[in-house]
Amino acid sequence: MDARNLLKFLVFSFGIALVILATWFHLPSSFNKEALDCNIFSGWCTSKNRFQSSNPIHKPSFSTRRQQPNHESDEPRHPLDPLTIQEFNKVRAILSTHPLFKSSNSYTLNSIVLEEPDKELVLKWKNGQPLLPRKASVVALDKRVTHTLTVDLSTSEITNHETRPGSSGYPTMTLEEMVAVLDVPLKSGEFNSTIRKRGVNLADLACLPVASGWYGTPVEENRRLIKVQCYSSKGTVNFYMKPIEGLTVLVDMDKREVVSITDNGLNIPVANGIDTDYRYSVQKLNGELNLINPISLEQPKGPSFTVDGHLVKWANWEFHLKPDPRAGTIISQAKVRDPDTLEMRNVIYKGFTSELFVPYMDPTDGWYFKTYMDAGEYGFGLQAMPLDPLNDCPRNAYYMDGVFTSADGTPYVQPNMICIFESYAGDIAWRHAECPITDIKVTEVRPKVTLVVRMAAAVANYDYIMDWEFQTDGLIRSKVGLSGILMVKGTTYDHMNQVPDQEYLYGTLLSENIIGVIHDHYVTYYLDMDIDGSDNSFVKVNIKKQETSPGESPRKSYLKAVRKVAKTEKDAQIKLQLYNPSEFHMVNPSKKTRVGNPVGYKLVPGATAASLLDHDDPPQKRAAFTNNQIWVTPYNKSEEWAGGLLVYQSQGDDTLQVWSDRDRPIENKDIVLWYTVGFHHVPCQEDYPIMPTVSSSFDLKPVNFFERNPILRMPPNFQDDLPVCKAQDSA
Amino acid sequence: MDARNLLKFLVFSFGIALVILATWFHLPSSFNKEALDCNIFSGWCTSKNRFQSSNPIHKPSFSTRRQQPNHESDEPRHPLDPLTIQEFNKVRAILSTHPLFKSSNSYTLNSIVLEEPDKELVLKWKNGQPLLPRKASVVALDKRVTHTLTVDLSTSEITNHETRPGSSGYPTMTLEEMVAVLDVPLKSGEFNSTIRKRGVNLADLACLPVASGWYGTPVEENRRLIKVQCYSSKGTVNFYMKPIEGLTVLVDMDKREVVSITDNGLNIPVANGIDTDYRYSVQKLNGELNLINPISLEQPKGPSFTVDGHLVKWANWEFHLKPDPRAGTIISQAKVRDPDTLEMRNVIYKGFTSELFVPYMDPTDGWYFKTYMDAGEYGFGLQAMPLDPLNDCPRNAYYMDGVFTSADGTPYVQPNMICIFESYAGDIAWRHAECPITDIKVTEVRPKVTLVVRMAAAVANYDYIMDWEFQTDGLIRSKVGLSGILMVKGTTYDHMNQVPDQEYLYGTLLSENIIGVIHDHYVTYYLDMDIDGSDNSFVKVNIKKQETSPGESPRKSYLKAVRKVAKTEKDAQIKLQLYNPSEFHMVNPSKKTRVGNPVGYKLVPGATAASLLDHDDPPQKRAAFTNNQIWVTPYNKSEEWAGGLLVYQSQGDDTLQVWSDRDRPIENKDIVLWYTVGFHHVPCQEDYPIMPTVSSSFDLKPVNFFERNPILRMPPNFQDDLPVCKAQDSA
Repeated sequence: MDARNLLKFLVFSFGIALVILATWFHLPSSFNKEALDCNIFSGWCTSKNRFQSSNPIHKPSFSTRRQQPNHESDEPRHPLDPLTIQEFNKVRAILSTHPLFKSSNSYTLNSIVLEEPDKELVLKWKNGQPLLPRKASVVALDKRVTHTLTVDLSTSEITNHETRPGSSGYPTMTLEEMVAVLDVPLKSGEFNSTIRKRGVNLADLACLPVASGWYGTPVEENRRLIKVQCYSSKGTVNFYMKPIEGLTVLVDMDKREVVSITDNGLNIPVANGIDTDYRYSVQKLNGELNLINPISLEQPKGPSFTVDGHLVKWANWEFHLKPDPRAGTIISQAKVRDPDTLEMRNVIYKGFTSELFVPYMDPTDGWYFKTYMDAGEYGFGLQAMPLDPLNDCPRNAYYMDGVFTSADGTPYVQPNMICIFESYAGDIAWRHAECPITDIKVTEVRPKVTLVVRMAAAVANYDYIMDWEFQTDGLIRSKVGLSGILMVKGTTYDHMNQVPDQEYLYGTLLSENIIGVIHDHYVTYYLDMDIDGSDNSFVKVNIKKQETSPGESPRKSYLKAVRKVAKTEKDAQIKLQLYNPSEFHMVNPSKKTRVGNPVGYKLVPGATAASLLDHDDPPQKRAAFTNNQIWVTPYNKSEEWAGGLLVYQSQGDDTLQVWSDRDRPIENKDIVLWYTVGFHHVPCQEDYPIMPTVSSSFDLKPVNFFERNPILRMPPNFQDDLPVCKAQDSA
Repeated sequence: MDARNLLKFLVFSFGIALVILATWFHLPSSFNKEALDCNIFSGWCTSKNRFQSSNPIHKPSFSTRRQQPNHESDEPRHPLDPLTIQEFNKVRAILSTHPLFKSSNSYTLNSIVLEEPDKELVLKWKNGQPLLPRKASVVALDKRVTHTLTVDLSTSEITNHETRPGSSGYPTMTLEEMVAVLDVPLKSGEFNSTIRKRGVNLADLACLPVASGWYGTPVEENRRLIKVQCYSSKGTVNFYMKPIEGLTVLVDMDKREVVSITDNGLNIPVANGIDTDYRYSVQKLNGELNLINPISLEQPKGPSFTVDGHLVKWANWEFHLKPDPRAGTIISQAKVRDPDTLEMRNVIYKGFTSELFVPYMDPTDGWYFKTYMDAGEYGFGLQAMPLDPLNDCPRNAYYMDGVFTSADGTPYVQPNMICIFESYAGDIAWRHAECPITDIKVTEVRPKVTLVVRMAAAVANYDYIMDWEFQTDGLIRSKVGLSGILMVKGTTYDHMNQVPDQEYLYGTLLSENIIGVIHDHYVTYYLDMDIDGSDNSFVKVNIKKQETSPGESPRKSYLKAVRKVAKTEKDAQIKLQLYNPSEFHMVNPSKKTRVGNPVGYKLVPGATAASLLDHDDPPQKRAAFTNNQIWVTPYNKSEEWAGGLLVYQSQGDDTLQVWSDRDRPIENKDIVLWYTVGFHHVPCQEDYPIMPTVSSSFDLKPVNFFERNPILRMPPNFQDDLPVCKAQDSA
């Protein structure tokens, strides 16, 4: 063994571990102010613009001066506001009196979030009224038993405590666990030896914790398992492109010990990683791009939105916005102003990314288990790193911080986690020009300006850019952008002409010794639509061919829209059909327009993909929420996470499919709409070494919700609206 | 008869007709300078920014000062440049010597456009070389016989002359014909009488020419027919919302006489049209919209593209851009720079909107024939009115004029027909942030800036916003935006509760006495892809479920990509399948990447709809090009228009379906890809009285075309790139 390298590695990795541990893990049990002091923890502290407590209504300014976040004195002002630092500390204090936490030092607090008050109370609550009693929902793990607790902050009591055995699955990993398991393989001589055999310097070792799924094998019984796979970071920050292929370490996450090591890739070289570093600072430019002159979204009179705590108001919209460690971004109580009555009308009570499913299409030993469920396993919000001002979001964006907790319940700030900005791409909201046929001189055009709420979660290699876009015409677009870095597989081949005809690579040879493995992405949204009230119906408007009767018409056929109200859940388990198409309406059956149409919103799918795995394939059972693109369930506070509350190593017995199969009545009830956006991703060389963004989206679009086009009276742009601008270097 | 109203109407309509006729129709046969003098014909003359002949490279400036177009001295500089005013005049002079035009005074010149030189010659031609011989392709109609002629401008000879009988269909209508037929019904006492009976003042009458389709009935034999339907414009510029329902006048377009009048809507009131006028100048604002502060795309150092004649260069792209009376926008020789070799590589030889199909889903008497094919019947480019600066396109857009000909061949200028601009919506070209798991401090994000080429064609009521968007990562997005005004149907109902259960309305009651009739939109693109050369293959990469063998893997299934090269046309007649998905690659089989993948581009469909009409329904036979979403044909200069060269009253015997059914070989040949974007449109009240834009798109995306991400080395935005801006009123 090369003792010098080992020493280097140990110093390096222990150093890293110590910093991380100091930051998140066993902080002193009393609240540590330093943990939030941005002079010390500068990595977390890049917040761009902050509201001042003296000025509760934030009007984002042009200033790009950085103000430090000051969340210590934050107080909740809305029933849905996330828990504050002071509240988190109170939760910890209350929990510390509970026998479970008093007696054990092995527990982790995997999640502490606001337990939202009952929907009916929130709906009745009005600004200015006393806040509803504040409660925390806690998920803790101790000796492979999951505890869910409700902590009442007003009474300082634990009002609910339930336990679930390991066979129900496990909670979202804590960041500390994800990091800690990476050290476990190093305890193994076999592991160290194989790393050496691969020619990888331990100082260059970079490992990832890979959720192991659940396959019903004996080794998975009564154990919380994770797989660790490693890479070489020699010569590149993009270690993902240098896999140590065939090496998988199965780790017991609780005992922090190696269960087994598989090593069947000794013949596979580690790719050279040349030109894989994507950082601008290391690029050698050869003038191949005609540089694009700077282009900027400018608002000479400032942005038009306000952020008051977590309440966002813009144009004819208002909504509550909350960072969440699991879902990422939660939109609540989205309301749009009626242009005739001027009242704010309910559209969405709550909308968020409920779960993801990312199965890789390689059944071989080191790959079959890669079937990620990023929200429930890794925490979609936990992985949402600070956004890069000017590049992740344009100038004038407002940045909202997340305040989450570490494994011992200590709060920390995730700065600049969500941004809010107005967008104008040069698009057109509506237009009409009369043509020469009618000889009327009319050209009326309205530019389209929208409000975007964005988060970017990097779950290890992949980056998900998650947008909620609000339009003045009442439309809400939810968009998923995929970028980041591929999960690649090492291979002995460096040219396709070496691959025997009968051999299948499970992907595309992207570069010498690198295969981009085919995979899917599914993103499932929870959409508690409340169209002008909670009791809604789901209507399928089927567009079907109708043949004409002989003599009826010179036409032989036309398309007829046939409305059918879904009575029970199974009526609303929907697979999209291009050749038997439907519109999908959420309507309020008790409210009609002036001419008698039920008011509603429709779900408009965009480009999508369907999961084609066997329904009894273990990953598909766990992710059975992707069996249909659309589902509708009756509102049930406990049914929010499409793969179940406990997704890690789950067995598929608490999914949206299971709930929906109960076939409960859904007509004229408080109902929740679920929609899944899908992607098949066959990698190509352009995805190497970092992927250009691929996007898809769906729309929630008013359908007879308004009496008429709600932006009929919107003004066009006028010449006087244009700002006078200069380049900085000429200003 | 009310003589006063008749007089008013006659004065009014004849006045209009005179102006139009003076503008387009029988201008003096020598070239009339006044016709292009913008001091006289100001309606056509809103051109914004012009290149100066002394400065052939146009760099768009910030100036919004309007310069008059000066196309009289234009000279072609590229083999694909459209015919110039001087060339049009020469064509007319040459035609005037031909016996056909000498002896007849009844002909119309329905189309005069450049006859593009043979592809191989264009491909060989290099800037600076003498221009290839210029030819014009002429479509003339005389006594229901279509003449197609080639006029060689270098020899002043007519080198080709073919004729086609009326049973082959007729050419695109001239604007003069569309306008002229509107006067025909007024010759009929019956028509005037029914207008009076409906309570419509003749001065308020507005009529539209509705292409009548073809249904194989005796009345259609040996006649060129059109249907005229009318509206009242009383109290609103939006006469479309006040149909005189049930009144259809069948007109012989050549004889300009009424064939028959159907009037079965006497009991249907004309809708009141209240609040249907969409012009900003007539809106009564009640403060319902929180006005949005101005937002503008600013480029302090100016745009990054150049326009030299019709050649556009931007970032790593260059292409030729040509306005066309039928297709609208034609993109030719689109090439992208390889970041490694710096060479410009061919992607598209020619791309344009080949045809549209817009069938209405109402088989009753006044509606069954509404099955528009807008490009071939009305001329998609002819209907593309001048864009509204600041609203149709952002500041800094460059505007390109069309130069087209009237029915006697006289050229005229269609100003500001196409705009070109850079867009930045705040989107992300690629990004990656390392997450806490890896503890590497990296956040690299690149903003996405694109180049958009836009045209907006208003074919009577509907507005089509047609974008070609170029991305630096090599992707080309073609987008269709639908806005404008619905084609509505009058009804006796003013509330849904009056409609008997068993009655079907063929649409949605939008307002009192107004039904928005269900319809589809199909837009079919011609895409002559030349991936690094003309000989390409079409590869279907089928993504299909593969079950694992017992014991092979804990997984039961995965998705496998299976490549299949299309040998003949029928292999490439493709219906999209969500549950049997494929990728669609155009590859160059003779060129491989460094690691041996064939270089290619893939077609990526967006949200779409399929035509579900009977294949033997007459409209569907004529629009059989919508029977599949994808087709691939061998390159054939005469196969450009998916519905046939002569679409008006066509019988479906010259469509893409007919050509493709020949099943010619397409492997490793010069091939053309066809794609159709579809929409089902069930109108809703929000579409009334003017529709918020609905969009869909498809992408052409490099797939192993580049060795790796071509924008890896692209710089991020820096703080110094931001301009310093002030509002005008504070500047």
